[in-house]
Amino acid sequence: ETRIDLGATRVEKGGYKHFMAKEIAEQPVVLGDALRHYLGEDAVNLPETLDFTGLDQLTLVACGTAFYACTVAKYWFESLAGLPCEIDVASEFRYREPPLPENSFAVFVSQSGETADTLAALRYCAEKVRKTVAVVNVATSSIARECDVALPILAGVEVGVASTKAFTCQLLVLAVMALKAGVDRGRIGPEALAAHMEALRSLPGLMNAALATSEPIVKLAERLAEAQDILFLGRGPMFPLALEGALKLKEISYIHAEGYASGELKHGPIALIDRTVPVIVMAPHDRLFDKTVSNMQEVMARHGMVLLISDAKGIAEAAEGTWATLKMPAVAEPFAPILYALPAQLLAYHTAIAKGTDVDQPRNLAKSVTVE
Amino acid sequence: ETRIDLGATRVEKGGYKHFMAKEIAEQPVVLGDALRHYLGEDAVNLPETLDFTGLDQLTLVACGTAFYACTVAKYWFESLAGLPCEIDVASEFRYREPPLPENSFAVFVSQSGETADTLAALRYCAEKVRKTVAVVNVATSSIARECDVALPILAGVEVGVASTKAFTCQLLVLAVMALKAGVDRGRIGPEALAAHMEALRSLPGLMNAALATSEPIVKLAERLAEAQDILFLGRGPMFPLALEGALKLKEISYIHAEGYASGELKHGPIALIDRTVPVIVMAPHDRLFDKTVSNMQEVMARHGMVLLISDAKGIAEAAEGTWATLKMPAVAEPFAPILYALPAQLLAYHTAIAKGTDVDQPRNLAKSVTVE
Repeated sequence: ETRIDLGATRVEKGGYKHFMAKEIAEQPVVLGDALRHYLGEDAVNLPETLDFTGLDQLTLVACGTAFYACTVAKYWFESLAGLPCEIDVASEFRYREPPLPENSFAVFVSQSGETADTLAALRYCAEKVRKTVAVVNVATSSIARECDVALPILAGVEVGVASTKAFTCQLLVLAVMALKAGVDRGRIGPEALAAHMEALRSLPGLMNAALATSEPIVKLAERLAEAQDILFLGRGPMFPLALEGALKLKEISYIHAEGYASGELKHGPIALIDRTVPVIVMAPHDRLFDKTVSNMQEVMARHGMVLLISDAKGIAEAAEGTWATLKMPAVAEPFAPILYALPAQLLAYHTAIAKGTDVDQPRNLAKSVTVE
Repeated sequence: ETRIDLGATRVEKGGYKHFMAKEIAEQPVVLGDALRHYLGEDAVNLPETLDFTGLDQLTLVACGTAFYACTVAKYWFESLAGLPCEIDVASEFRYREPPLPENSFAVFVSQSGETADTLAALRYCAEKVRKTVAVVNVATSSIARECDVALPILAGVEVGVASTKAFTCQLLVLAVMALKAGVDRGRIGPEALAAHMEALRSLPGLMNAALATSEPIVKLAERLAEAQDILFLGRGPMFPLALEGALKLKEISYIHAEGYASGELKHGPIALIDRTVPVIVMAPHDRLFDKTVSNMQEVMARHGMVLLISDAKGIAEAAEGTWATLKMPAVAEPFAPILYALPAQLLAYHTAIAKGTDVDQPRNLAKSVTVE
């Protein structure tokens, strides 16, 4: 079942071959819109009632791509605001009846705002937590209406079944929430806040630069399209990006891709590695870079084909022995996942094109999962 | 690097072709040993100092298979004791510097007790939580020595690189801890405790019955060995079992298997399903059975090849349209993962045998990961 806004009937591809290509390319613009909405001069623009002071826990629940946005957000809320986060996929959360601290908020992330399991999870939480928060694209949706606070992600209508711009806009709203939490909890002072806001404001420009990886990706995709299996690796907040990169590739190219935390590779999945398995490593030159490179070198020692996605500094240090590299602009550490989503999406898109699959309407999938 | 006890030089295969086969078969015996150690007449035998009363959180950290044991345990601690659990793989946990409630315990699970990332995670927690607890096979290991409380899993020397009996014994110790937590926190009364202990005591006998699935599995394995990709599905505490089943298959057969929460299938991975992809559904006839069956039927509607592992009741209700079924003994709901580990291990073992890979020493893997 595909449900889209009435307005979507007027949405056109505007010169792009597919809605997905258009929606990937729109990200600098829609993220810019969301930034103008959520960032003020000296503070973030979020409802005053969304006060994270003294909160014991944040619970984040979602499905699919939106769940990976929550997984990134856990790193942000914990590192920027010292706020413990519980995250779970909605279909598990709703049935395991998790204990919830009363002094907590619960956040529900859904593009459509109608995801059945996420809505059920919201109803489970409604009477148990201090506040429920919706992070949704469709402002009139059930999840938006039933939550105490609804934050629109402002991505505009998303038609492609594989979520792209909704993901980066979800991440942005969650990042802004994490900044407010950091301020409320005394972890982020005025200077740090200004620096983080500046870093967020630079994202649309950096995204434009990241879109230029499309050209080298078209070439890489010819080879990726031949792969039976692909692994994605990342550490820290890049680990959920590895999961998202793999999900995108599964969804539209039908290649069995899987994301792993780099450090878990040795505990099993490295047995899969041989000359035929591309391993895509998402590693900006951050404080965990050396650790990830060491995992990457283990892959290369077993003749794995490594594609390293990093910035100029990372590539200068670690390109040796890789199959290929993709150069990304440098980006402030916490927000790299928002930027690195773009090459992940482009890799999936061009690989699917090379395979000739139906990018906008992949087999077996619906845009909005309104049944359990 | 393989590190095993000195005693292991005397360990022999005792008539089995591989250590892994022997270690799978030993499970009823070693689990029986662990049960006698940890279950008393009317109470579990755990140190009095391990008092879960009033605790705010339990943090469980591990790598690989041991992490999946922690993932099962989260369901147990939350449902049996109302105790919120934070779980993470050690390589992520140690670097993200998670906020830890002071009034919490942290549990570290490792067969060898020397896993580098898990040891580092322990050292991060040592001064921050009320108590650190080791769940290890090697009682003299670094992790056992550095924790406040060390609980041996009593699995005996495990030689096969792919963990089998250590996994089920880890699960047992975690289940016993969850029972104590339930009693300490007033969630489990004397009658419920007696029933749970009875259910645990029945496991060795049920395991013997489950080992009889080896015969039909040999036949199924011939077909599974031809697969390029295999999915495992489970809900609730069977979800981590799906992850573990997939990991076992990856480790020793080099087939790209992946585990998913059944409810997440629709949010992307179902795009992979076609006639060539076996989907292994681990679903005892519990309160979530109908939900899982509904996900399974979506797979069959897309011509996926379903292997349903369930009990007589589950198979009677849902076998129609599956490729094959494996009949398991009925088992008390919370502890099904301990029993269903056996067919997961046997599927991996016999598939690897059918492929002719080196079961006890799979490529690229070490028994104990003592580097990062």
